[in-house]
Amino acid sequence: MNAPAHTTQLLARPVPQALLDALSQRFGTQYSSALAVRAQHGRDEGSIEAPPPAAVVFAESRQDVQDAVRLAAQHAVPVIAYAAGSSLEGHLLAVQGGISIDVNRMNRVLSIDADDLTVTVQPGITRKQLNEAIKDRGLFFPIDPGADASMGGMAATRASGTNAVRYGTMRENVLALEVVTASGEAIRTGTRAKKSSAGYDLTRLMVGSEGTLGIFTEVTLRLYPLPEAVSAAICSFPSIEAAVRTVIQTIQLGVPIARVELIDANSVRMVNAHSKLDLREEPMLLMEFHGSPSGVREQAETVQALASEHGGQAFEWASTPEERTRLWTARHNAYFAAVQSRPGCRAISTDTCVPISRLADCLLDSVAEADASGIPYFLVGHVGDGNFHFGYLIDPNDVGERERAERLNHQLVTRALAMGGTCTGEHGVGIHKMGFLLDEAGAGAVDMMRAIKRALDPQNILNPGKIFTL
Amino acid sequence: MNAPAHTTQLLARPVPQALLDALSQRFGTQYSSALAVRAQHGRDEGSIEAPPPAAVVFAESRQDVQDAVRLAAQHAVPVIAYAAGSSLEGHLLAVQGGISIDVNRMNRVLSIDADDLTVTVQPGITRKQLNEAIKDRGLFFPIDPGADASMGGMAATRASGTNAVRYGTMRENVLALEVVTASGEAIRTGTRAKKSSAGYDLTRLMVGSEGTLGIFTEVTLRLYPLPEAVSAAICSFPSIEAAVRTVIQTIQLGVPIARVELIDANSVRMVNAHSKLDLREEPMLLMEFHGSPSGVREQAETVQALASEHGGQAFEWASTPEERTRLWTARHNAYFAAVQSRPGCRAISTDTCVPISRLADCLLDSVAEADASGIPYFLVGHVGDGNFHFGYLIDPNDVGERERAERLNHQLVTRALAMGGTCTGEHGVGIHKMGFLLDEAGAGAVDMMRAIKRALDPQNILNPGKIFTL
Repeated sequence: MNAPAHTTQLLARPVPQALLDALSQRFGTQYSSALAVRAQHGRDEGSIEAPPPAAVVFAESRQDVQDAVRLAAQHAVPVIAYAAGSSLEGHLLAVQGGISIDVNRMNRVLSIDADDLTVTVQPGITRKQLNEAIKDRGLFFPIDPGADASMGGMAATRASGTNAVRYGTMRENVLALEVVTASGEAIRTGTRAKKSSAGYDLTRLMVGSEGTLGIFTEVTLRLYPLPEAVSAAICSFPSIEAAVRTVIQTIQLGVPIARVELIDANSVRMVNAHSKLDLREEPMLLMEFHGSPSGVREQAETVQALASEHGGQAFEWASTPEERTRLWTARHNAYFAAVQSRPGCRAISTDTCVPISRLADCLLDSVAEADASGIPYFLVGHVGDGNFHFGYLIDPNDVGERERAERLNHQLVTRALAMGGTCTGEHGVGIHKMGFLLDEAGAGAVDMMRAIKRALDPQNILNPGKIFTL
Repeated sequence: MNAPAHTTQLLARPVPQALLDALSQRFGTQYSSALAVRAQHGRDEGSIEAPPPAAVVFAESRQDVQDAVRLAAQHAVPVIAYAAGSSLEGHLLAVQGGISIDVNRMNRVLSIDADDLTVTVQPGITRKQLNEAIKDRGLFFPIDPGADASMGGMAATRASGTNAVRYGTMRENVLALEVVTASGEAIRTGTRAKKSSAGYDLTRLMVGSEGTLGIFTEVTLRLYPLPEAVSAAICSFPSIEAAVRTVIQTIQLGVPIARVELIDANSVRMVNAHSKLDLREEPMLLMEFHGSPSGVREQAETVQALASEHGGQAFEWASTPEERTRLWTARHNAYFAAVQSRPGCRAISTDTCVPISRLADCLLDSVAEADASGIPYFLVGHVGDGNFHFGYLIDPNDVGERERAERLNHQLVTRALAMGGTCTGEHGVGIHKMGFLLDEAGAGAVDMMRAIKRALDPQNILNPGKIFTL
């Protein structure tokens, strides 16, 4: 098992003044080298820090992105795309120096093809902005990481969220991309056809490449009709195991549940304190069913019967949007409630995902280890996918505590890999999980990734120092 | 629009006697250089021919594949994996000479993980063999190209079939691979976890790479519980347009139909003649619904109402396996009935796939062109995906007829690309569609594929001369 490699990556390459001058001249007011702007673009929501980029370009078009990349390429200087800044594994950090290309102004919907259930957007649009733009067409886009992340960033990290158990992840829902490559050329991958066997699947190669193979300037996505009926429920359980066994059986029976989230008793306690609620302080499942009215009823009855067999209690149902929002408050607020429960803390998030049959074993052993560690933590999970997150709430100034939390993460990843799982279900590798990736994929597969990277980015300027070192 | 490039590929590289001797010594009775064996391994079900490979190795293990690749690599000689031989675009042809590695003996199920709905198999197992092996576990694997193809070949061509409208293609259903690379090393891609953000998606890069990036020695697949209820129906329509409009509305409404296939009146006529049936010689939809008994009923009622609005008649329903098989006879026999309707002919199959809203436009114009050409043809389609196949039944000795058929294909592909579609929904590029791929993806994207190929296979020994030329 390899240690996280993030301490070895701070090898900032020089950014020549000539490049900064050229960028300033080309971009005018779309360029900034102010420290506050650079600092904002040099961090994400994760727990690692690094010096900021040397400058920021605010791109407003594909041409802007191409010109910024071309200028940087002339000086072999790194470029890092930036939108919502919500990544968790250090993806946005300028660990080898370089220029940040902010695509937040590229946030337009370019075409809604309602008849085909597809939409093409610019990369800076966030998931909430997108859903706002399409809801009056009776459509929605289901992928919902916790943050209001951008479509470009979600594609780059192969993100998912609570609806993935039914609708898949960005892997399944990105149909096509426009990508600016390391030379500043723009290419298109994929089409709007639902399936294709036309050569290498460059779309899927780009999705999850974390900015290391290209910068996305257009993203074509699958949409879904708003379900005719939606029903939500929460249910408390006497133990995490009882909740998880209910989920495993639900999935194994093939119930097309749209969402099934676990939150542990710690999370419920933190949410109760944060949001002045009085939820039962027990492990809880939050569920949502989509379909026709009778289909939703049928699914809900099946799951309620399974839950009852496992001691599930205090079932609460909601079918109006307002009631559903109330029920889901606990899940939506869990992260912030947890972070605020320990002032000044930072959350180290784990992200393992295991085959569903191994979920209980993987979770329960890791809960025991976390309880024994004495570090405050919370646990939430997209358990229908076998994916869950511990958040270890560490004092960032306490080196020993960070080390203990990293050790817990280490033990969890080792366990998940031994069960046929992955070190990261949806957050990506970034800086933080390079060692874990090597353990999971093996040196041969990581070398294949490196060979692809070298072939497509010979100067190593596209977000270098992420996923692997060259 | 570029012409198909298959005429330029016959650049066989020498296969030194020293390599043949080394293979013969290493593999003994698992080696053959007999002309009949070589000839069988040097063709597929498509319409192109080439000289056979220089020898055939019958691999029985990953080690066999690795040793064969290593020996070939020492002499920079091409290797081509072979299993069912059912590809359609010249994928198996030794256009640059080389060795065929037959993996038919690697046809074992390695592990069935019923609780996780996954299975790991060797590449030579066919889809029927796989389904036979898992059916008593209450599971099935839905991907069903017309032929009884192998899992290795289906992964390599990103195959799909009639169930893809509901269950996806090999893109969605291959979870992990073991791959022997150009140097003879074995790597693993992916895990059994349902989702992952762990670095580049090598699994999806390999799926659809047509043997040009590696030879698969293990394939891990998603399985599905056998549906509680299955109902099938056929329905005749006054026109192709009426049938297609029914399908478009079904998909746009989000009905989770499991299969929806079009066969045209020509196909029905050919099937009636071939199988002594008396089906109405009109365009026909064949449908199948999977789910709970009430869910299936609800879906079927919705579609029947849509069909009636479009003049659909002669609805016939079946819910026992025997009745379903009878109803689907026409679809299953269409290809062979068509080929036998013109003795000595070869079928040139088209494979375009378009966004569902453009399906009627794309189809109807192409039907008019095919009717005007005078070439006998049939039309079948996985129309729920926007994918359909014309089969132009040409006399292989009539150069003019082949040219006319290729021109029809050309016009069809041009039309599909202009509508945001793809030249190949499920058959792959092979030798036959290189020009079309360039039109569809653009030179920049194809150059990116070439760069990946050069990086992973510097000697160009893995099935060279397919997808693109180097």
